[in-house]
Amino acid sequence: MTNAALIYAKDHRQQHLQSLIDLLRIPSISTLAEHNPDMKRAAQWLADYLKGIGMARAEVMPTGGHPAVYAEWLGAGAGAPTLLAYGHYDVQPIDPLAEWRTPPFEPAIRGDDLFARGASDDKGQVFAVVAATEAHLKGNGRLPINLKLLFEGEEEITSPNLAPFVKRHRQMLAADAVLVCDQAMLSPQLPLIMYGLRGLTYMEVEVRGPTQDLHSGTFGGVVDNPFNVLVRLLAQLQDPVSHRVLIPGFYSRVRPLSDEERALLARLPQTDEQLRRLAGVPALVGEKGYTAIERSCARPSLDIHGIPGGFIAAGKKTVIPARAGAKVSMRLVPDQDPDEIAGLFEAYLHAIAPRTVELEVRTLGAARPVIVDLHGPAIQAAATAYRDGFGASPAFQRGGGTVPIVRDFQDLLGVPIVMMGFGLPDDNNHAPNEKINLTCLYKGIETLTHYYTLFAGTKKGSSRTRE
Amino acid sequence: MTNAALIYAKDHRQQHLQSLIDLLRIPSISTLAEHNPDMKRAAQWLADYLKGIGMARAEVMPTGGHPAVYAEWLGAGAGAPTLLAYGHYDVQPIDPLAEWRTPPFEPAIRGDDLFARGASDDKGQVFAVVAATEAHLKGNGRLPINLKLLFEGEEEITSPNLAPFVKRHRQMLAADAVLVCDQAMLSPQLPLIMYGLRGLTYMEVEVRGPTQDLHSGTFGGVVDNPFNVLVRLLAQLQDPVSHRVLIPGFYSRVRPLSDEERALLARLPQTDEQLRRLAGVPALVGEKGYTAIERSCARPSLDIHGIPGGFIAAGKKTVIPARAGAKVSMRLVPDQDPDEIAGLFEAYLHAIAPRTVELEVRTLGAARPVIVDLHGPAIQAAATAYRDGFGASPAFQRGGGTVPIVRDFQDLLGVPIVMMGFGLPDDNNHAPNEKINLTCLYKGIETLTHYYTLFAGTKKGSSRTRE
Repeated sequence: MTNAALIYAKDHRQQHLQSLIDLLRIPSISTLAEHNPDMKRAAQWLADYLKGIGMARAEVMPTGGHPAVYAEWLGAGAGAPTLLAYGHYDVQPIDPLAEWRTPPFEPAIRGDDLFARGASDDKGQVFAVVAATEAHLKGNGRLPINLKLLFEGEEEITSPNLAPFVKRHRQMLAADAVLVCDQAMLSPQLPLIMYGLRGLTYMEVEVRGPTQDLHSGTFGGVVDNPFNVLVRLLAQLQDPVSHRVLIPGFYSRVRPLSDEERALLARLPQTDEQLRRLAGVPALVGEKGYTAIERSCARPSLDIHGIPGGFIAAGKKTVIPARAGAKVSMRLVPDQDPDEIAGLFEAYLHAIAPRTVELEVRTLGAARPVIVDLHGPAIQAAATAYRDGFGASPAFQRGGGTVPIVRDFQDLLGVPIVMMGFGLPDDNNHAPNEKINLTCLYKGIETLTHYYTLFAGTKKGSSRTRE
Repeated sequence: MTNAALIYAKDHRQQHLQSLIDLLRIPSISTLAEHNPDMKRAAQWLADYLKGIGMARAEVMPTGGHPAVYAEWLGAGAGAPTLLAYGHYDVQPIDPLAEWRTPPFEPAIRGDDLFARGASDDKGQVFAVVAATEAHLKGNGRLPINLKLLFEGEEEITSPNLAPFVKRHRQMLAADAVLVCDQAMLSPQLPLIMYGLRGLTYMEVEVRGPTQDLHSGTFGGVVDNPFNVLVRLLAQLQDPVSHRVLIPGFYSRVRPLSDEERALLARLPQTDEQLRRLAGVPALVGEKGYTAIERSCARPSLDIHGIPGGFIAAGKKTVIPARAGAKVSMRLVPDQDPDEIAGLFEAYLHAIAPRTVELEVRTLGAARPVIVDLHGPAIQAAATAYRDGFGASPAFQRGGGTVPIVRDFQDLLGVPIVMMGFGLPDDNNHAPNEKINLTCLYKGIETLTHYYTLFAGTKKGSSRTRE
């Protein structure tokens, strides 16, 4: 069965390349209103294509913003597992345009790479899902699993309407696992499975002192300057030597790294020295007892992003500002709860703030961390599929960043998330000269073709595991 | 001799009021280029008036910016002391115009007050000097002292050209004391002599980390965030409990407050509670062992004015900024040296900064503190003049602010500075509905008329005292 699908995939590389080029020609930039018609065109192109390859249902569906594309083929029956595959068809803006070697929406092949905005992020990877689906439907006349596809048009503008859409269509989207195809491999020889993401609590602090700005000549030494107070408060958030966050209770729910995870992370090819050079700093810092890679994805952190208020223009003004603010966020790891952390942060600052100022602490955002059992069958099937498609075992890594939609899928659908991808670190996502490597693309299509078949074997006893 | 001058002053109150109104009609706003012709007009008006009352020399003199008015009468001979009186004829802008009850350049009398921009700051006080001069010249045909008058047109734009002018004309401006008439009394019954001012060292700090902004998802917990580092450095500048500045050597040259000074400051009518309400804060803070008024004028202080860099817009952005800055100034008291303090500040920050960032410390400004011996004859003559003019002994106070020109006069001419004034705390300087109280104005003219006579008696043995 897979064989016919695989043969179809290999035989249709040129046709698939041409179709992807058609999709890449549509300038579906979600953040620019003048491209709204292009958003509709790209969504319709996908729905039409999916209809054309034999999906039972394929349509453009409205959301609160740009439309989503939904398609399904449920002919494998109740005995087979159901997979929901997610991707996005919107792309980033193209500036600075002058730095593109060829126009961003006129796809160009140079060597083994296809250059165009969206080639890697994420139209190329969306199309790999579509092409693998086509390989089964056309090669075998059917899929080995029940398949649902959801491609959104707002990922590059932080998916404001996706969670409501998923909530509203929970029944329609019900599945045994969610496949997210929107990431890079570590190298062409080293595929990657992300099995976790950090969460985030984003806070805003405001210290209010005098009712209006005061002159430091008259009041310097007599009133508590909100900025003098604020830096004292912020300095007490983190130990300068151990770099540990000093908020009481901050670490109480942090899940320790298992020996197995530490071993997996230690096998990653990136060295501390490479990371240091990438960051462009004299030295890395951080919590004792953890490698840099462990700290960056499996340990929580705290960063100050800016300190608004006061006098920040050129020159000198001797003001005691009436108020001082700060933007502070914390990256969280399982099983920290972002709302609980927000409460601890607020309580701690109130406890250490002097009574000579008024303190206000606001929560600007909260996203929960994600972790998926890397022994689960849906994940292990992905590892096998990579071995079949790329001839290489994947690395397992948690991501240091935060992708709220992943956690939303996990919470709303209650199933494991499988994060795969066929991009490369040098694909220039969000930058000029974005590209996808064609060998990776074709191997990606074949990997997914394998994955569908492997996923069919995960049904019994394991597919209901919740993370 | 004084008697005839005093009688002249009292007899000419209406004429003086009319002349002051003429001067106030000229909108000499130094910061607005469209008023440059008005600046010239106001300067010429003063020169003409001074010529008219019999000053031997009275002219408009060029500076690097708006012109200065210089006049002299040196007929008292080598045996008499020479006084240089300083004031400024430029005024602040008038916005918000809608809040003025009568137009700012159409002087209006309501009750005992004359309303107009510049009425108190400083044309009214400049005119008091002019009118007292006139009283002697017209009432007695001569002055009891050698008198030099210097009225500048750039005080409201921080006097950028005054020090160079004084330096260039040091011989012309040589005197035994400088009288600065540009301040308020504490109340109509309580005149004030300022015998000191705080100095200032204004610093800019920059902490540089990564070569470019980084994503806190990827690098949070791995690199030293310049803002995290900066708040730790700034928090170590001042003790949170004692409020003392922690820079080693900061206090080593601070002149202790004498018992006499503490007694003088304790006699000032302003209470801590009044100061607290004026500042609009829940409580005053500061160095233990000093009253609020002592801290505000006779003890050094440190204030953070703003922390530029990073993300300060609305919303949330998870950036680790490449750099973070801070604007910090310190008010200094005798005998602190602003350049030495700048060096101590810089050395301290370099000593406590981690090697994981690059630190740059720049000096934006430095002004030395001022103190004048309050037992000196020029000051004591001013106290007597107040008693004669207002029937009240003046309070003695140091100012918490910094007036660089005062220190420039002290340094360049090497003589005591006498700071008097006839404004009131509610004169609305720099605000809508500026006014001068007419009783204070007339008594001010009479006080200065007395002062010239009293200053004539200071020559022997004391006038050369340097502070």
